Amino acid sequence: MSQLQPSSRPSTGESLDARYDTVRSLSEALAAPLSDADATIQSMEDASPAKWHLAHTTWFWETFLLRDRLEGYTLFDERWPFVFNSYYEAEGERIHRFSRGMLSRPTLEEILAWRAHVDAAMEPLFAREDLAPLIELGLSHEQQHQELLLTDIKHGLFQNPLGAAMWDAPAAAAQAQPQEWHEHPGGIARIGHQADGFSFDNEGPAHRVLLEPFALSSRLVTNGEWDAFIADGGYDTASLWLSDGWAWVREHAVGAPLYWREGEHFTHSGWQPRDPDAPVTHISYFEADAFASWAGQRLPTEFEWEAIARGQEGQAQAHDPCGGNQLDDAAPPLPRGSEGLFGDCWQFTRSAYLPYPRFKPAAGAVGEYNGKFMSGQFVLKGASCATARGHSRSSYRNFFYPHQRWQFTGLRLAKDI
Amino acid sequence: MSQLQPSSRPSTGESLDARYDTVRSLSEALAAPLSDADATIQSMEDASPAKWHLAHTTWFWETFLLRDRLEGYTLFDERWPFVFNSYYEAEGERIHRFSRGMLSRPTLEEILAWRAHVDAAMEPLFAREDLAPLIELGLSHEQQHQELLLTDIKHGLFQNPLGAAMWDAPAAAAQAQPQEWHEHPGGIARIGHQADGFSFDNEGPAHRVLLEPFALSSRLVTNGEWDAFIADGGYDTASLWLSDGWAWVREHAVGAPLYWREGEHFTHSGWQPRDPDAPVTHISYFEADAFASWAGQRLPTEFEWEAIARGQEGQAQAHDPCGGNQLDDAAPPLPRGSEGLFGDCWQFTRSAYLPYPRFKPAAGAVGEYNGKFMSGQFVLKGASCATARGHSRSSYRNFFYPHQRWQFTGLRLAKDI
Amino acid sequence: MSQLQPSSRPSTGESLDARYDTVRSLSEALAAPLSDADATIQSMEDASPAKWHLAHTTWFWETFLLRDRLEGYTLFDERWPFVFNSYYEAEGERIHRFSRGMLSRPTLEEILAWRAHVDAAMEPLFAREDLAPLIELGLSHEQQHQELLLTDIKHGLFQNPLGAAMWDAPAAAAQAQPQEWHEHPGGIARIGHQADGFSFDNEGPAHRVLLEPFALSSRLVTNGEWDAFIADGGYDTASLWLSDGWAWVREHAVGAPLYWREGEHFTHSGWQPRDPDAPVTHISYFEADAFASWAGQRLPTEFEWEAIARGQEGQAQAHDPCGGNQLDDAAPPLPRGSEGLFGDCWQFTRSAYLPYPRFKPAAGAVGEYNGKFMSGQFVLKGASCATARGHSRSSYRNFFYPHQRWQFTGLRLAKDI
Amino acid sequence: MSQLQPSSRPSTGESLDARYDTVRSLSEALAAPLSDADATIQSMEDASPAKWHLAHTTWFWETFLLRDRLEGYTLFDERWPFVFNSYYEAEGERIHRFSRGMLSRPTLEEILAWRAHVDAAMEPLFAREDLAPLIELGLSHEQQHQELLLTDIKHGLFQNPLGAAMWDAPAAAAQAQPQEWHEHPGGIARIGHQADGFSFDNEGPAHRVLLEPFALSSRLVTNGEWDAFIADGGYDTASLWLSDGWAWVREHAVGAPLYWREGEHFTHSGWQPRDPDAPVTHISYFEADAFASWAGQRLPTEFEWEAIARGQEGQAQAHDPCGGNQLDDAAPPLPRGSEGLFGDCWQFTRSAYLPYPRFKPAAGAVGEYNGKFMSGQFVLKGASCATARGHSRSSYRNFFYPHQRWQFTGLRLAKDI
Repeated sequence: MSQLQPSSRPSTGESLDARYDTVRSLSEALAAPLSDADATIQSMEDASPAKWHLAHTTWFWETFLLRDRLEGYTLFDERWPFVFNSYYEAEGERIHRFSRGMLSRPTLEEILAWRAHVDAAMEPLFAREDLAPLIELGLSHEQQHQELLLTDIKHGLFQNPLGAAMWDAPAAAAQAQPQEWHEHPGGIARIGHQADGFSFDNEGPAHRVLLEPFALSSRLVTNGEWDAFIADGGYDTASLWLSDGWAWVREHAVGAPLYWREGEHFTHSGWQPRDPDAPVTHISYFEADAFASWAGQRLPTEFEWEAIARGQEGQAQAHDPCGGNQLDDAAPPLPRGSEGLFGDCWQFTRSAYLPYPRFKPAAGAVGEYNGKFMSGQFVLKGASCATARGHSRSSYRNFFYPHQRWQFTGLRLAKDI
Repeated sequence: MSQLQPSSRPSTGESLDARYDTVRSLSEALAAPLSDADATIQSMEDASPAKWHLAHTTWFWETFLLRDRLEGYTLFDERWPFVFNSYYEAEGERIHRFSRGMLSRPTLEEILAWRAHVDAAMEPLFAREDLAPLIELGLSHEQQHQELLLTDIKHGLFQNPLGAAMWDAPAAAAQAQPQEWHEHPGGIARIGHQADGFSFDNEGPAHRVLLEPFALSSRLVTNGEWDAFIADGGYDTASLWLSDGWAWVREHAVGAPLYWREGEHFTHSGWQPRDPDAPVTHISYFEADAFASWAGQRLPTEFEWEAIARGQEGQAQAHDPCGGNQLDDAAPPLPRGSEGLFGDCWQFTRSAYLPYPRFKPAAGAVGEYNGKFMSGQFVLKGASCATARGHSRSSYRNFFYPHQRWQFTGLRLAKDI
Repeated sequence: MSQLQPSSRPSTGESLDARYDTVRSLSEALAAPLSDADATIQSMEDASPAKWHLAHTTWFWETFLLRDRLEGYTLFDERWPFVFNSYYEAEGERIHRFSRGMLSRPTLEEILAWRAHVDAAMEPLFAREDLAPLIELGLSHEQQHQELLLTDIKHGLFQNPLGAAMWDAPAAAAQAQPQEWHEHPGGIARIGHQADGFSFDNEGPAHRVLLEPFALSSRLVTNGEWDAFIADGGYDTASLWLSDGWAWVREHAVGAPLYWREGEHFTHSGWQPRDPDAPVTHISYFEADAFASWAGQRLPTEFEWEAIARGQEGQAQAHDPCGGNQLDDAAPPLPRGSEGLFGDCWQFTRSAYLPYPRFKPAAGAVGEYNGKFMSGQFVLKGASCATARGHSRSSYRNFFYPHQRWQFTGLRLAKDI
Repeated sequence: MSQLQPSSRPSTGESLDARYDTVRSLSEALAAPLSDADATIQSMEDASPAKWHLAHTTWFWETFLLRDRLEGYTLFDERWPFVFNSYYEAEGERIHRFSRGMLSRPTLEEILAWRAHVDAAMEPLFAREDLAPLIELGLSHEQQHQELLLTDIKHGLFQNPLGAAMWDAPAAAAQAQPQEWHEHPGGIARIGHQADGFSFDNEGPAHRVLLEPFALSSRLVTNGEWDAFIADGGYDTASLWLSDGWAWVREHAVGAPLYWREGEHFTHSGWQPRDPDAPVTHISYFEADAFASWAGQRLPTEFEWEAIARGQEGQAQAHDPCGGNQLDDAAPPLPRGSEGLFGDCWQFTRSAYLPYPRFKPAAGAVGEYNGKFMSGQFVLKGASCATARGHSRSSYRNFFYPHQRWQFTGLRLAKDI
């Protein structure tokens, strides 16, 4: 088990190659406490091995930058793209998703060597201005996989009855946050990415929506409030649940958030006492919606959330307006609460993940990315304690199926006013 | 096989008791060609036996009107509510959905006797003004089940390798419709039920949405166009499909709409030649979306569809603005095309089925109805050839999961302008 | 619900055409209390609709006798053989087994008309001596399906929460039988069919086996004894169970024989009180084996059972040596106990269903019958209360998978001496 | 990839502690080419990780010898018995079988340390005569797991699209064996373990069976003969297959033995050319039975096989009468053929795995071993190239379900004479 590894926070003013180094180093620092075996296991189809995340992100750079844009580049191992490609759908071209956990070869060491090789080869490309957008995409892509690496290995270690951990428990405790409401008068709001910086295709085009008056809670729902929901029979009261949610609760005998047991929850530091003041996390949309019904309120729409966030951006920097608890370095991610909208947990909205007006996916393989998931999922806003700090912004749209809960997912209540 | 049974079209000016008679009679006329055995079979969990529809609608009247509002009423058979109740979720209170096909008892004849008994008992209640809204709800509920009865029995008869039919084939052919576009300049549109008449809870509250300029096709996509999609490899081209859609196509080896075989399709009149000019039907959301991508266009949102429909209502009556092909009497439902927005097929929109702002489900058991299905489904607009004519209106929101296609589902293209 | 229909017991001295009439009439008498809808339902893949049994047996006569051996015979309906053929395996040639419950057409009435037509056409064939063996086979085949018709419709009616019945409850009560032991000194025993009469291919060739000394109980295990097994925690004690059996118990939460509820069991006469002196029935091999372990004894082998049965045949007629409770007429089958080895319940042996030495399946489609099931199943001996009386003999080998229990299955203990 | 590691063949004259050393060392030598990650993966529920086999065998010694019989012994890690115990069935006491692949902790190194600790602690126990039978059982148990370690890791490495290997390919080629027949006149044969040495409980009690005259092939069926079976449409001919076998072929689209692809098969040395003269292996009972039908012959019974083997034992040593290809050291196991009955492949018999007359399982946890698997499986005789040489004898009864084929399974034909 490794100690916390302090690292400097990425500054947005950094040069591209410096940011590349920072992001790539963080990926490796996150995996540093893991053995080759730890990095090989895959606990479910939704998750991927840590090793696979390290390799897949490297495949991205090698394929779309080095292979396609750097003359004379030779693939590190020509058999690996097939194995670490998650994109192309045509049958037979990639291994079945749930077989990723069988990749005991290549070893973690070999993949780290691949990473070093690719990193060195990338050097000449940072000067090429035409490649900057693609490099930005690659950085965001790798940051997404940092978060998945953390949530996937947490799920993997959780399967081990010995309570395996990868970091010592952090000392910092949660701070109770007062319940206040950000009110919004309704009217036309501008939605979607409109600044200069990087964004994914699904964050645009920027457009306007019409809002009714509403209020958004100043803080996330806590473990203590969730205990009250359980104590009040929340998981046994059909009328609180969506029909699909109730079926899910019954089929899987769900009675608490993922990773909970009596008084404790499972973390990257193993089983630890649960802090009642900390934001609740690892809940599904079904649970978030049922809790909101029980509380006599509702989830916000993605537009409501974004409208409040934009209102706060005047007072703060564009990214990370509120300084919440995000991934700054290779430390155990754990929600502790903050005054801001971002950080701690991804927050379920009641908005389905659908295209914005006039949305067009990017062309080519890189574009086979966000648009094709636009059915059956819900939008989450904010960022979690496992989200790289530079990776959050008001227009960011995360999305998961309503039953999924292995991410750091939580909720912030809204109400009509 | 029975002959077409002409019946008069329901006039909206009819008295409540006359409309009750009309609706109840139509339910029985639809089942008239069916034997007790036909009316007993259940071909999949999504479908229910015809007998069950006849009984469940009767249970609604007996429970919410006679039992709760008519003093001294005695249940026809006190064991039947348990069997024909689809609502309450608490465990053990109703039989598992896929066991409905085991109800060889009570017989069709016994259920028709129950219907007659309930109809007679209803007589005194039509005079009570306070009950009119609940009676309206019961009528709409029974009309919904008329449509399900037709689509469910079609699916059941389809399982029979002998090509079972329940009506003679209709003589009328489809008429090719010219492709034109209803353009809309965008801006604020009023959405949701706002008139005096009946509506379901999910059609409100009325509210405003902001639209971008767009155009909506004047006609539905046809069988002939779908043949071209197939011929062009539509079902084999991953890039046209949503990720979940592609998984569905591969898992179920889907290569055509439901009920299609070489040159023919299965209808309530058995296997019949397919008319290239008729609207395509029995497609899933996944197929509709892939077709639209292939055609270089897109599906409309529910708001776009409703905005065009409201624009046309000035020129037409409130219900059924366009005189399309709907369920007027006990005849084989079959899409034939029309100039209007309504009729022939339910039309997939790209809008997820979600609550409107400030939506509150109705209280009590009757309210456990629409709100609880608000995850994972898409909204369909219009009405199909199996939709009772009085049952369509601009604000009506039908909803199905993106893989379902045993309803008369089709598509109308939209585009940005 | 129909009254008991007395009928004469089939005499083995009857002529072939008289026996044909008796067997065919009994099939129809068994189905007489059923409506077309009752006769259409199929409750699981293992079961078939009553209508299907009536049709399939008729298909046998029409195909192998009339079509193949009667010049000029025209099929009653040329589309029906496809639907009612259970034999040929080549893909696409017959409908999927679990779709039999979708055959609302043809109607029960049409199938009865087919039966009458075939019966009339069979008339000239009884005089042809060369056809006698095939006709014998057809009679045995139809008798097998009589038993399946009874057990399948019992399972179907059981699904109905209204407790559907098809006969009034019989008056006769069970008689407690004293527990005695038939001892056998071991040594070489002759096994397999060796007399002149009809047998299935799997009953031969006759051969010798070597037995150790053993004893076989004079009576079947009773409901009362099973109550004691349950009360003693039999279903909760892993050490009593085979590994596959324990997995089955846990997966399906099995805690009692099929059709049991508090103090009652489901019968062809609906829910009835359970008689503690009656033989226990509707148990799986797993349950039978666990009970025997709990009782400190074991199941007999098929050879031990047959050796005792042959020893008794000197004292009795070849078929049905002991006059037990079998299917004599269209009455509710119900185990009541007897002094004999045959009747009441099929008795699980610990012998796997495997070929006898030098076994060769009969050639042709008729031969695709017993041999192909020789993996994974266990042999049952005796006969049940639903077995046509003429259909039992010492060499008869019934066989089912160890988890199946919708047949009238029970157990008779054995022990080493 | 490691080179072949020569080791001396275990001599039956060795002392118990020398044999303990030999067996324990071989387990570690077999795992020596594996990384911690290789030793962690689990490819299916039937298989276990290599690490688990190393740990589970150690658990056996620590539990039944050290904990129970050595005063003052302290468990190496008290949390590990729970994780590496495969025996006790009571719920909650051991982890779900398919979660074994999540055990990235403890590491391979930690498990090897455990092994060394246990080996050292065992030292004083070899002198205790009363423990010799239990130590013999432990050795046989560990030898069984050596074979499983080899077949399980083969299946695991096979999942890797990179063709992972753990040893260099062996040089030795197969030698074509002439087809001859061992004839047996029938009569009474003695079956079951009757000598002094070690045996499992299921090999007894010794008893007599009556055999018909038969002949057993002098050699195993080869890859070349299997090619002919395929070429003749063996996998497409329903009449050759058992009913369950045909369903299995269709459901899984089986068309060749496991691990075959065009001209090659997967081995512990990766993909290698297939030798037509080598015995075919990795086939299911269903395939073996279908091949025998196609060849116009049949599989032997377990008694026939044993009777021939006993006849040969006069000419050879009690164990391993014929010097076939078995596991002598840490080298890639590969069938090459021999004149003997033992070695190369386990040979399917047509005998179901059932108790011998008067069989009683051993008492206690150790006894929960063989008896509980006596349903649904078939007996295999002989030994495979992955079976430790000292681990084979005429009375040995291996057993698998008829669809399983990840073991080195093959067939030897028999016929009636």
